[in-house]
Amino acid sequence: MSRITIADIARQAGVSTGAVSYALNNRPGVSERTRARILSVAAELGWHPSSAARSLSGERTETVGLVLARDPGMLGVESFYMQFLAGIESELSKRSYALMLQVVPDLDTEISTYESWRAARRVDGVIIVDPRDEDPRLGLFVGESALPAVVVGDTSLARGITNIWTDDAAAVRESVRYLFAMGHRHIARVGGVESFGHTLIRDRAFEDEVGALGAQGVICRTDYTAVQGASATRTLLTNSEWPSAIIYDNDIMAVAGLGVASEMGMRVPQEVSMIAWDDSPLCEATFPRLSALSHDVTRYGAHVARRLFDRIEGAAPGSFLDSTPRLRTRGTIARRVTDQ
Amino acid sequence: MSRITIADIARQAGVSTGAVSYALNNRPGVSERTRARILSVAAELGWHPSSAARSLSGERTETVGLVLARDPGMLGVESFYMQFLAGIESELSKRSYALMLQVVPDLDTEISTYESWRAARRVDGVIIVDPRDEDPRLGLFVGESALPAVVVGDTSLARGITNIWTDDAAAVRESVRYLFAMGHRHIARVGGVESFGHTLIRDRAFEDEVGALGAQGVICRTDYTAVQGASATRTLLTNSEWPSAIIYDNDIMAVAGLGVASEMGMRVPQEVSMIAWDDSPLCEATFPRLSALSHDVTRYGAHVARRLFDRIEGAAPGSFLDSTPRLRTRGTIARRVTDQ
Repeated sequence: MSRITIADIARQAGVSTGAVSYALNNRPGVSERTRARILSVAAELGWHPSSAARSLSGERTETVGLVLARDPGMLGVESFYMQFLAGIESELSKRSYALMLQVVPDLDTEISTYESWRAARRVDGVIIVDPRDEDPRLGLFVGESALPAVVVGDTSLARGITNIWTDDAAAVRESVRYLFAMGHRHIARVGGVESFGHTLIRDRAFEDEVGALGAQGVICRTDYTAVQGASATRTLLTNSEWPSAIIYDNDIMAVAGLGVASEMGMRVPQEVSMIAWDDSPLCEATFPRLSALSHDVTRYGAHVARRLFDRIEGAAPGSFLDSTPRLRTRGTIARRVTDQ
Repeated sequence: MSRITIADIARQAGVSTGAVSYALNNRPGVSERTRARILSVAAELGWHPSSAARSLSGERTETVGLVLARDPGMLGVESFYMQFLAGIESELSKRSYALMLQVVPDLDTEISTYESWRAARRVDGVIIVDPRDEDPRLGLFVGESALPAVVVGDTSLARGITNIWTDDAAAVRESVRYLFAMGHRHIARVGGVESFGHTLIRDRAFEDEVGALGAQGVICRTDYTAVQGASATRTLLTNSEWPSAIIYDNDIMAVAGLGVASEMGMRVPQEVSMIAWDDSPLCEATFPRLSALSHDVTRYGAHVARRLFDRIEGAAPGSFLDSTPRLRTRGTIARRVTDQ
């Protein structure tokens, strides 16, 4: 595609490129008559006010950025990110904004991606996901001249940058209390990646609540995949003192857990109860249907995008609770009746 | 964030904006001495060669576009798109390209999105998915001055635009023949959205092969969701002459089908065999594990991105077979032994 440049317009109109730049950016420096001629030549040549020109003139790029530091092969597994993206998109499209998405292998590359976006003025703001303790990325977004940013995660991790969070600790505590009330005294948590701040927050809430109730609790560590979810479940259920209830950190691991129980001939929920996280259509597709800690991930994404627009438009940083995931009981929780 | 403009540099260096433009774009029109002074002032002011400036000078935007005309709420359900995006990203990141992603409600909005991207020079090329018969989008990408594009889908749908395709017809025929060889004489297909060209291609291959073998075939229509996959399965298995094998158009519907069979107390695969499409980690998570038409979706996305880069760099349009999905048998196919 051939592009019309300022130089093309200048040549055709017989003026300097500076004059063209003033005219097209609607700034003083050329007479009204010259401006009119330049605009007419520009229109004739098929020139459009491009995002490029707007950006050079200090206006918006109409783009927000999101970097995911994840193994590309793992991204398709969880429904969370696609629903979250869909929610972001629903707000972006209202404003004709586009999303600049980049998948990178690690945090260092994520940081250099932000730096190059900033240097090249490619985005108006960014959405930062999976914040960690002492997160090395966040320093880039602190201070007056920093690129507007929002953090998707807990206030304790956000270093004063606008954050939007779900109260995962309350959700974990609610689940543990409910299972305890249903007679469960030995409860397992199959948790996700340890370096993510929200994993630690859920871990702590689990340990605190189990401890407060005087129940027995165990945490297994995974990478969120079905394979590791299955493997953790196999280890838990093979133990002579198996837990009578398992809380999984996402939906796909709970499906895998259900598969393992079925393979081992253990009845769910009669012999072992199960709870998934990130309630998705998948939780409705299994039999028995999966009880899950449910929150609207698409709406969460939309909320995050709105807060980023607020920041871009100059709002002060803030901390915003999106929701507290609620336990939606379906077919995988039962009162513990047998002695184990 | 304040942006350094060409005018700022011109003012500081005491030259015209045209001279700055020539110097920064490394084009003739200024002396070497002036160029050096301008570059030094630009560096002093913190000016970076932005994508905006490159675009205005006729160079690359380093961005490719993808529009998904899908209900945002449905995008999270299937693993296909996230894996496909991850594959695209794996090639983009090698070249420091970004993906401009937009989710829109319908084809009309998709078309106007392409038009505005083109007008504003926001992307170097686009990836078009879910091509249809007589697709109204493709006219935008035919002709000398059109934006470079690739179509993800069958050659018969691509109207001469570069396309990358998987041989779905061969995959369907292979599955039907295998099921027939295993004694199945009544086979169902739970198909996806009818307006997508690949759905019709799979439909035709299914009908042809079932007809050629003298077997009985039935097609159910769905929207790819677990809910409709479950509902179609319920209808099929409730019929007094139920099919002894079902081929699903994605993975989530097959999981839902497995759930329905389990709920109805029908044994899989002893009483009914099942095959999923788009083999994903989900197919390994269920019990029994789902047999599936398997292809590497992440690699497919990477292939598509490479072909788009070829087009952007001026390669002639072509038609490229990515792969033929292969039947990966796991635990959900058995020889039909009982009379039904």
